[in-house]
Amino acid sequence: MADPANTPLERPSVIAAHALIKEYIHYTPVLTNTTLNDLASTPQSASSLAGTPWAGQEPAKPKIRFWFKCENFQKVGAFKVRGAFHALKRLMAEEAWEEISARGVVTHSSGGFALILLFPLVNLSSNRNHAQALALAARTMGVPAHIVMPTISTPSKIAATKGYGATVIFSGSTSTEREAVVEGIIKQTGARLIPPYDHPNIMLGQGTLGLELQEQVLQMNGGSKGPDAIIAPCGGGGMLSGVALSCEGTGIQVFGAEPEFEGADDCKRGLESGKRIETVKTLTIADGLRTPVGAYPWTVIHDRKLVRQMFSVTEEQIKAALRLVLERMKMVVEPSAVVGLATALFNEDFRRIVEKEAGDRGWDLGIVVSGGNVSVEALGKMFEVSPAKAERQEGTVGNDGEKVAENVAG
Amino acid sequence: MADPANTPLERPSVIAAHALIKEYIHYTPVLTNTTLNDLASTPQSASSLAGTPWAGQEPAKPKIRFWFKCENFQKVGAFKVRGAFHALKRLMAEEAWEEISARGVVTHSSGGFALILLFPLVNLSSNRNHAQALALAARTMGVPAHIVMPTISTPSKIAATKGYGATVIFSGSTSTEREAVVEGIIKQTGARLIPPYDHPNIMLGQGTLGLELQEQVLQMNGGSKGPDAIIAPCGGGGMLSGVALSCEGTGIQVFGAEPEFEGADDCKRGLESGKRIETVKTLTIADGLRTPVGAYPWTVIHDRKLVRQMFSVTEEQIKAALRLVLERMKMVVEPSAVVGLATALFNEDFRRIVEKEAGDRGWDLGIVVSGGNVSVEALGKMFEVSPAKAERQEGTVGNDGEKVAENVAG
Repeated sequence: MADPANTPLERPSVIAAHALIKEYIHYTPVLTNTTLNDLASTPQSASSLAGTPWAGQEPAKPKIRFWFKCENFQKVGAFKVRGAFHALKRLMAEEAWEEISARGVVTHSSGGFALILLFPLVNLSSNRNHAQALALAARTMGVPAHIVMPTISTPSKIAATKGYGATVIFSGSTSTEREAVVEGIIKQTGARLIPPYDHPNIMLGQGTLGLELQEQVLQMNGGSKGPDAIIAPCGGGGMLSGVALSCEGTGIQVFGAEPEFEGADDCKRGLESGKRIETVKTLTIADGLRTPVGAYPWTVIHDRKLVRQMFSVTEEQIKAALRLVLERMKMVVEPSAVVGLATALFNEDFRRIVEKEAGDRGWDLGIVVSGGNVSVEALGKMFEVSPAKAERQEGTVGNDGEKVAENVAG
Repeated sequence: MADPANTPLERPSVIAAHALIKEYIHYTPVLTNTTLNDLASTPQSASSLAGTPWAGQEPAKPKIRFWFKCENFQKVGAFKVRGAFHALKRLMAEEAWEEISARGVVTHSSGGFALILLFPLVNLSSNRNHAQALALAARTMGVPAHIVMPTISTPSKIAATKGYGATVIFSGSTSTEREAVVEGIIKQTGARLIPPYDHPNIMLGQGTLGLELQEQVLQMNGGSKGPDAIIAPCGGGGMLSGVALSCEGTGIQVFGAEPEFEGADDCKRGLESGKRIETVKTLTIADGLRTPVGAYPWTVIHDRKLVRQMFSVTEEQIKAALRLVLERMKMVVEPSAVVGLATALFNEDFRRIVEKEAGDRGWDLGIVVSGGNVSVEALGKMFEVSPAKAERQEGTVGNDGEKVAENVAG
């Protein structure tokens, strides 16, 4: 690709990116939900604030109308295709067709796979979202794709990536080992590296969802108004920074959300200290957000202050938000996709901002639902009932219970 | 209500029902899915037919385009509100307002609850769909609702029903005990019984989803054609018979689907023997379909032959279809909602009909996705990985795995 420094990181570039990719991606729906609006617009109880930093304080009284941008319904199940298609289209505009189709592109399934030693049942598929997205984009354009995956990847994941027509190359599971294999492929084939988030063209591509969200809220509000604010999850920060660019100059406030577990809130901590945190070790269930924020996203989020504030949520808050989306919205999403919702429902600092700035009028709040790649086994593991709990549940059954109730017609 | 015999069971009555209820219900979306179309349009492998009645036979080669009518996105999470609103509107048209608002309506959460002794983790919420639907409809109209629930109901379910403003009355868990309590309430209050499925007004109300599906497929096909056929789940048969009525005279073929587990395929067996089966004892995971087909639905399905054929599917086929909807469509549905999809994917008798009658042209096949009321715990239980399996899965991890992979930005 061209020197990234040559790509202007500004709203018109996001609009140009959208024009380049829109024929290849889904214009995903924006959904609303009255139950969740009511929940968010009801003050938290004093008891639910016990044990939090806001214990004993007066609960905030925000008024929130949610607009969920559903990238779980995107191709490959996540927003990642936007960046992959955009990076590839830009590459094709720049190089001769013969060169690209001979050399191909390369990326790796970054991080996380080795964690299955500890959590054998947790699906780490969101870490593969970029790899599969690139494989799909490359197949669509007729460009060879090389995907470097750890040898410990599960057979189904290897099969899925191959299913998109990519060549899978195995590596060890550390980043050093992965990068060595990627380097080898580049030397051997001349393939161009398409990184998962730390590149302007990826950021601009991911940011296109922000444009659509603005357009859709305005339309669904009958043309009267767009969103007041948007919250997006932050892992490597490519999507958050792209969304921030899509809102530049519009007056829409952009916030980022992260898990706080084991320091996964690196972007928040980095903003607080004024210095980007480059390494993160966390096993948060929001497995798409285990990555530290990248250098290019940081320039947008920190240096140019296009993200107003970062918030973090606990694992329990992520699970509570996930349950609400699954059970109330009847929609399958991955844990990473609900950190924005969890912030709006449970983070009193955020809720006070809404109360204070919007008052009775309330906010139209865009929530980026980033993806839906989670296996039923992983969901089951997250919400499994412990044997002790199951027994208590059974204990509520009275003596009048029969083993099999007879169902009689009529 | 008026003597049921006075309500003509015909397509115009379904159209009239739709006009009565449409302002109270969601016009639920119809979704398509390329992955599932491809899967259904690919012959099953010889190995997947091993152990089935079709072992050793040439796999069918149907061409199928799915149109999913998503009643999991309906109010109260299931199609049941259609019948409840219709029955209530008809009652209100018939009686003086003072009478209805004084007497109210009554129903019971039929069957199933006692089963939590055996399956403490399985959510039996689809059995409550009618009760909650009636509670919502009654609250909307300002009519008191009495809901009889087994004492063994879980506190969250009691709270949910009360949440719709209904008065909850407890009973024992057998049908005899329930009916005695319902009789008592009717004597005491004069409340009118609104049964869950075995009544013409319920059937006509549920059938309105068939009208919408016809309209939506036609529109989504650019006005060129509607569905060739529709498959709907069959428990008490109120919805299936209503859908059949909505298709009467249109040339659209209507099929029914049931679980085969422990004789849950009572309607199929009844059609084969020519005699309705009135009692069923089954613990199928499709808990909304544990009910035998009712007398009024039977007149439509059997006597008038408006349902062409019934098919049954195994528990494993239901789980496989459920996994596909959750993981590929990113949509939460209850097990009962996928028996139609399971039939189209796995039942060779059905697939042969499509191959034979549609040939290369294929069928536009409407699938009634009846509801989405399932808890995350119940889903977890259905797809839990046994310790033995988890160990095997872990066994595929190589020696190069680290405990915690380090994720480095860039």
